[in-house]
Amino acid sequence: MGRVTKRVPSTRVVVGDADDGPVASATSRPDTVAVEEPLAIRVEGRPVSVTMRTPGDDFDLAIGFLLTEGMLEEAAQVRQATHCRDEDETGSPTFNVVDIALAPGTALDTSRAERSSYTSSACGVCGKTSIEAIRATTRYAVARDTAVFDPAVVAGLPEALRSRQRAFDRTGGLHAAGLLTATGEVLAVREDVGRHNAVDKVVGWAAREGRLPLSGHILVVSGRASFELTQKAVMAGVPMLVAVSAPSSLAVELATEAGLTLVGFARPPRMTVYAGAHRLGLA
Amino acid sequence: MGRVTKRVPSTRVVVGDADDGPVASATSRPDTVAVEEPLAIRVEGRPVSVTMRTPGDDFDLAIGFLLTEGMLEEAAQVRQATHCRDEDETGSPTFNVVDIALAPGTALDTSRAERSSYTSSACGVCGKTSIEAIRATTRYAVARDTAVFDPAVVAGLPEALRSRQRAFDRTGGLHAAGLLTATGEVLAVREDVGRHNAVDKVVGWAAREGRLPLSGHILVVSGRASFELTQKAVMAGVPMLVAVSAPSSLAVELATEAGLTLVGFARPPRMTVYAGAHRLGLA
Repeated sequence: MGRVTKRVPSTRVVVGDADDGPVASATSRPDTVAVEEPLAIRVEGRPVSVTMRTPGDDFDLAIGFLLTEGMLEEAAQVRQATHCRDEDETGSPTFNVVDIALAPGTALDTSRAERSSYTSSACGVCGKTSIEAIRATTRYAVARDTAVFDPAVVAGLPEALRSRQRAFDRTGGLHAAGLLTATGEVLAVREDVGRHNAVDKVVGWAAREGRLPLSGHILVVSGRASFELTQKAVMAGVPMLVAVSAPSSLAVELATEAGLTLVGFARPPRMTVYAGAHRLGLA
Repeated sequence: MGRVTKRVPSTRVVVGDADDGPVASATSRPDTVAVEEPLAIRVEGRPVSVTMRTPGDDFDLAIGFLLTEGMLEEAAQVRQATHCRDEDETGSPTFNVVDIALAPGTALDTSRAERSSYTSSACGVCGKTSIEAIRATTRYAVARDTAVFDPAVVAGLPEALRSRQRAFDRTGGLHAAGLLTATGEVLAVREDVGRHNAVDKVVGWAAREGRLPLSGHILVVSGRASFELTQKAVMAGVPMLVAVSAPSSLAVELATEAGLTLVGFARPPRMTVYAGAHRLGLA
C-alpha cells in the first residue's frame, strides 16, 4: 500500500510586504501528494472501463463498480479477480489492469450502461430518463427499508469519517467514503482521488463480505452528493447517504424517487435533510 | 440561465442536548441547490460524450471539450453549434443535447480518445503512457512559454475567483474555473457541478474569442488539480495552473514533463509550487 501517497519536490512560497513592495520567500522541500493512476477494469479479458484512481483495494473497486453500474448482481457472480501482467517501460508490473473472471452461468449485463452511454438516443439523456433507468435496474427496494436513525448520530458521521482519513491528513488531496451501521459504528473507510472510486471500494468490500443489500446502513461521503454517488448508494441498497457538503438537483430528485434518505451539509450540530426525513423521525 | 440553481424542499436540523438525552429540532424550508443535468455532445449527429453538467454555456462546454480532448484543433473548425430538438416526457425541450457542425474539410480526430479509452491495450493505461499521449497530441509548446508571474498576484488568485462564484454562494455546490491575465485581470469565470466542465467552458469561450493558445495566461480552479484538469490546461496552451487545493501525483508528473507551472494550496500569503517554479522567479 505504499502507492497511496508519494513524495514529490515542491517549493513553499510565502508572500509578504517589504518597504519597497511585495516580496516572496521560497523554501524547497519534499511534499506528500495523493497517488493518481489509471485502472483498467476488464471482465473475462473484455475492456469495460478505465478510471483514474488511487492504487489499493483494486479488486473491491472493480467489483463495486460492476455492481453499482448494474453490470453484476452480486459478488458471488465473481469467480476470481486478478491483476493482469502489464508492464511499464522499465518492465515493472504496473498493477493498473484488473481482470474479473465470472462464475459459471454468469453474464455481464451491459444494458443499463449502454442505455446511459453516449450511444443512447437524445431522450435517453434527460435527467428523468436517467432516474428511470436506475429505478428499473436496481434490485433493492430502498424505499421499503424501515430503518430509523438518530439525528445526533447522523450529524456526527462526517467527523467520524474525517478522523479516519489517514492519507488525507498527509496530502489534503483524497476523498473518502465510509460505511457505518445505524448506531454509527464504522465498518469500512476508503480514500481515493475519485469520490466515486471511494464509494465503489466500500461497496465492493461489502459485497465480498456478503453484506448486500446494505439495509439499515449509512454511506458517508467527504464531499458533495452528485447524481452518480446517489445512484451508487441506491444500487447498493443503502437507505441513507450523508454528505459533508451540498447535493445536486439530480441527486435530490433521484433520492426522492428512490426513497433514499439524503443528508447534506452534515456539520454538527447542524445538517440539512433533502429526502426521506421520516428515517430521522422528523417527518 | 434560470437553470443554474433550483429550489428544493429541505428540512434543517439542529441537534442539541436536553436533560434526558439528545434532541433534534427540525424546520422545513426551501433550499437552493446546483442544477445537475446530463449533456450529450454530438458532432455532425455522431454521439461523442455525455457529461453531467450544470446547464449554461453548453456550446462553450462542447467546443472546449472537443479541443481539450484533442478531437479538434481550433474553434475555426466549428461551423455551427446547435441544441438538438429533444424533448422530455412532457414534450418540453430539454436543451440537453448539443450538436457541433464542422467547417468544410474538418475531420474529428478521435485517435487520442481511442488510445486512452477502454478499448486501449494494457500498457495504454499506465500513467507514463497517458502522459506521452498528451505530449504527442498537444499543439502548443507550453514549456517554451516565457511568461513570468508575480508570486503576490498568483497567491491571491483563488480569492479573486471565489469572489466571483455567484452560484456557489447560493448553493455551496459548484466548482469554478477562471481564466486570468498575467497581472491577475479576470477574463472569464464559469461554475459547474463538474470541475472539468467548468474548465472546458472557460477554454471553449477563449477558443471562440480567438485566444488560443492561452500563452501568458493563468487558469485557476476551485478545488484539487487532477491529471484531467492538468491535461486540459496543457491542451489549451496555458503556462500556469493554480489550484486552491492539492494536486495528484499524476498532475505533478504531467506538469513537470509538459513544462506547465503547477501551484497548489494557494491561500494567501502561502502557496506551494509543484512544477515550473522558474515562472515565479523562484528557481
